Amino acid sequence: MPLERTLDGVLGFELLETGEEEARATFTVGDQHRQPMGIVHGGAYAALAESLCSMSTHLAVSPDSIAVAQSNLTTFLRPVSEGPVDAVARRKHRGRTTWVWEVDFTDEQGRLCATTRVTMAVRPARGP
Amino acid sequence: MPLERTLDGVLGFELLETGEEEARATFTVGDQHRQPMGIVHGGAYAALAESLCSMSTHLAVSPDSIAVAQSNLTTFLRPVSEGPVDAVARRKHRGRTTWVWEVDFTDEQGRLCATTRVTMAVRPARGP
Amino acid sequence: MPLERTLDGVLGFELLETGEEEARATFTVGDQHRQPMGIVHGGAYAALAESLCSMSTHLAVSPDSIAVAQSNLTTFLRPVSEGPVDAVARRKHRGRTTWVWEVDFTDEQGRLCATTRVTMAVRPARGP
Amino acid sequence: MPLERTLDGVLGFELLETGEEEARATFTVGDQHRQPMGIVHGGAYAALAESLCSMSTHLAVSPDSIAVAQSNLTTFLRPVSEGPVDAVARRKHRGRTTWVWEVDFTDEQGRLCATTRVTMAVRPARGP
Repeated sequence: MPLERTLDGVLGFELLETGEEEARATFTVGDQHRQPMGIVHGGAYAALAESLCSMSTHLAVSPDSIAVAQSNLTTFLRPVSEGPVDAVARRKHRGRTTWVWEVDFTDEQGRLCATTRVTMAVRPARGP
Repeated sequence: MPLERTLDGVLGFELLETGEEEARATFTVGDQHRQPMGIVHGGAYAALAESLCSMSTHLAVSPDSIAVAQSNLTTFLRPVSEGPVDAVARRKHRGRTTWVWEVDFTDEQGRLCATTRVTMAVRPARGP
Repeated sequence: MPLERTLDGVLGFELLETGEEEARATFTVGDQHRQPMGIVHGGAYAALAESLCSMSTHLAVSPDSIAVAQSNLTTFLRPVSEGPVDAVARRKHRGRTTWVWEVDFTDEQGRLCATTRVTMAVRPARGP
Repeated sequence: MPLERTLDGVLGFELLETGEEEARATFTVGDQHRQPMGIVHGGAYAALAESLCSMSTHLAVSPDSIAVAQSNLTTFLRPVSEGPVDAVARRKHRGRTTWVWEVDFTDEQGRLCATTRVTMAVRPARGP
C-alpha cells in the first residue's frame, strides 16, 4: 500500500525523528486537519500521537516482537486554527509487554495545545 | 470551508443520526483509514468518536452554549482491515458544564473493535 | 493478610456479586471515603472499580492465568456526600490478553455520579 | 471533620509540598494500601494523585474559584509490595477552566510504578 494513500499520508504527517526514548513529528494545519468550525480536529492529534508511538515502538521491538496500540487518551488544551503543530513523544515506560508514551503538541508560539498518553502492547511476533 | 475538505470529509465519515442521547455514524474502510500495516488507524476511531459527540452536543446546546471536546480516550480491542465500521454513541452524562459520551465501534460481524469515552465541555456562547 | 486490614477492608467495600460479565458492589459513605470538603474522594470510586474488576477477572481466568489492572480512567460527574453508593461493572471486552470493564456509580437517587473504565491485563500464570 | 478520619488520613498520605507548578507526596506501604495479593492497590495511586492535584489547584485558585476533579487516568506500570512510594505532580496546563497535572509514582529504587493524569475543573466560587 503506497504510504501517501494511508491516513498518515492523507493527513500529511511528517515523522521527523523516531527513537526508543523520544520521537518528533509535525504537520502544517490545512483543511484536512480541520473540523467544521475551522480549528484542528481532535482526531488529528490523536492520530499523530498514535502514528509516532506505534512507529517508534515498532522499530525498537521488531522483528522479535510486534507493537500494537492499546489505548490513546488525548486531552485538548487550546484550539489551533493555523500554522505548524509540533509533536514530541517521550517514552515513560518500557516494560516487557507494555510501553507508555506521553506526546505533547505545541503551536507556533510554543504553547501546549494537546497532550496524549499512548499505551502500546508488545507481543511476540508469530514465526515465519 | 467546504465540508468535503475537512477531516470528516477527507476520511469519508457518514453521520447517520445525531441526537441528544444517541448518535450513529459509519465509514467503509479504505486506504485513507489505514496505517502502514493495512489495518484501521487508531486515529480514525478517535476522530469519528470526536465528530459524532461534538456534533451531537453542539446541536443540543447551541445557540446559547458552545460545545468543545475536552478529552478522548479510545481503547483498541480488535484490528479491522476492511468492510464497514459502525459507531454508536450513547450519552452517559449531561451536566451543566460537561457532557460525557461512550462510543462503541463494531465491525461487519458486529464485534466490538474499539470504544471511546469523549468528554465535552459546554460553555456559554459569546454574545453577538 | 487479613482482608479487613487491606484497602478494601479499611474502606468498607462490599462486593455483592462477581461474574464474568457483570459485577456489583456498594459502600455507605463514611468519613474514610471523604476528602476534606466532605464529599466522596475520587480515589474511592477508582479503588472500588479496581477491586470489582480485578476480582471478577481473576475469578474467571485463574488458575491458568492471572489478571493485573493496567489502567483506570475515572470520570467524576456529581459530588456525593452521604448515603449508599452502588457500583455496577459491565464487561465490554474479553480478549486473550485484555479485558475491558465499564463501571457506573450511582447515588441513593439512582443518579450517575462517576464512571470508570478499567483495563485488565491477562497473563499466563507461572507454573508451580 | 478531623483530617485523620478522611480518606487521606486513613491511607496515611503525607503531602510534602503543594505548589502551582509542582507538588510532592509520599506514603510508606502498609496493609491499608494493599489489595488481597499483597501489592499496592491501584486505587491508592489514583487517590493520592487526586489529593495532591486537588489540594494544589485549590490553594492556587481559592478563594475566587473552586477546583473540582473531573477525571483521573492512572496507568499501572510495576507492582510494589513494600517500602516508600513517592509521588511528584507536575502541572502541564493552566487554563481558565481546566488544569491538567501529570503525577509520577516511584518506588524505593526510583523506578516508575504508576502514572496519573488528573484533570481539574476550575469554577467561580459562589458568593457569600
